Amino acid sequence: MSDSFVVDKTNKVRQLNEYARYDRKTVFGILDAGLVAHVAFIQDEGPVIVPMIYGRENDTIYLHGARKARVIRLLEKTDRASMNVTLVDGIVYARSVFNSSMNYRSVTVFGKPELVEGHDDKLEAMHHISEQVMPGRWHEVRESHEREVKMTGVIRLAIESASAKVTEGHPDDEEEDYDIPIWAGVLPVTTEVGAHIDGDRLIEGVEASDIVRRMENRKL
Amino acid sequence: MSDSFVVDKTNKVRQLNEYARYDRKTVFGILDAGLVAHVAFIQDEGPVIVPMIYGRENDTIYLHGARKARVIRLLEKTDRASMNVTLVDGIVYARSVFNSSMNYRSVTVFGKPELVEGHDDKLEAMHHISEQVMPGRWHEVRESHEREVKMTGVIRLAIESASAKVTEGHPDDEEEDYDIPIWAGVLPVTTEVGAHIDGDRLIEGVEASDIVRRMENRKL
Repeated sequence: MSDSFVVDKTNKVRQLNEYARYDRKTVFGILDAGLVAHVAFIQDEGPVIVPMIYGRENDTIYLHGARKARVIRLLEKTDRASMNVTLVDGIVYARSVFNSSMNYRSVTVFGKPELVEGHDDKLEAMHHISEQVMPGRWHEVRESHEREVKMTGVIRLAIESASAKVTEGHPDDEEEDYDIPIWAGVLPVTTEVGAHIDGDRLIEGVEASDIVRRMENRKL
Repeated sequence: MSDSFVVDKTNKVRQLNEYARYDRKTVFGILDAGLVAHVAFIQDEGPVIVPMIYGRENDTIYLHGARKARVIRLLEKTDRASMNVTLVDGIVYARSVFNSSMNYRSVTVFGKPELVEGHDDKLEAMHHISEQVMPGRWHEVRESHEREVKMTGVIRLAIESASAKVTEGHPDDEEEDYDIPIWAGVLPVTTEVGAHIDGDRLIEGVEASDIVRRMENRKL
């Protein structure tokens, strides 16, 4: 497996392409840090976006929803889907509106979605999604009922093409603007997991496990 | 103006529709809290997603990019665009994988994009976008050069249809699962603006204004 995705018409970053990255390490790093992806598909000739949780295994993304959900039925039938994960890291206050911007990590992947069938394959895909959102939790909870697996629609998206865009650091002003006596800099933006909140029907004495606690203070 | 968007085939929430909201107060509240939207459009018969900053004025969304950017050229030509803003509020640890979920606020809007033309109209739209991301900053920075406005492509998206989905609170388990002696609850997820970081070429003695400081600790 090559270390980078091939750059072609589909994934080539056009704007601010000095920030483009195509290497798997960057692409996977952003995918693995995120919690929610946006998936686009076409319905009645128009674009629709749906936020979804996801999991990754090598070059494969897994998505899920109710088996009868529109997003699953449409993804199952389509030849190409596009998915993006964006993590905002800061607001960049430049000395002009024009040069003000955001710091962010963003990945867009393209691929042909396929319905995952068969109890075991579906369960394995669901496990990957579970690991992304609540690592280690899979073996703490009760086993999935067969009925639940049947009711879940699982999509496998083999990544055919991907690109990342990463911007960081200080404002980049016009040379003459640095003489304007106005503050410029960055306001960092952080997404973080907080301390656990007990459910309202806990059995007395049952406490959050180390697996749950390890997610606390996790930064995206 | 009605207080709610009309529910039709385009914006009707199909899954978990008990969480659907169509009232402007909820839709606008989520749009106004977000920093980044995902916009979908169609290129070569396939869906593409781009994360973009945005601004809102009543039922109108403004988007911008480089005048020559693909996203601007394609939005300008298309009859329908879809945009989503999702804010993640928590990871819901249920007693089964099936009932585990996320707490979030999400809005999807649909509309026909139009290119904004003319210096003054573009500037006004850019002002709305600036207010969304860095409120009050517009009048602190130097005025936009005519060339910069020309180089900016601005899209006006009149919201024709919108829906929101808001989930919050505790895990909702199968009745029999509450007897399983395992912890369940919520790990809150918070996106927050942090303390300002000075730019690397500040004029000595220039400090962040109250306008900048008011953004600190803002939660999305």
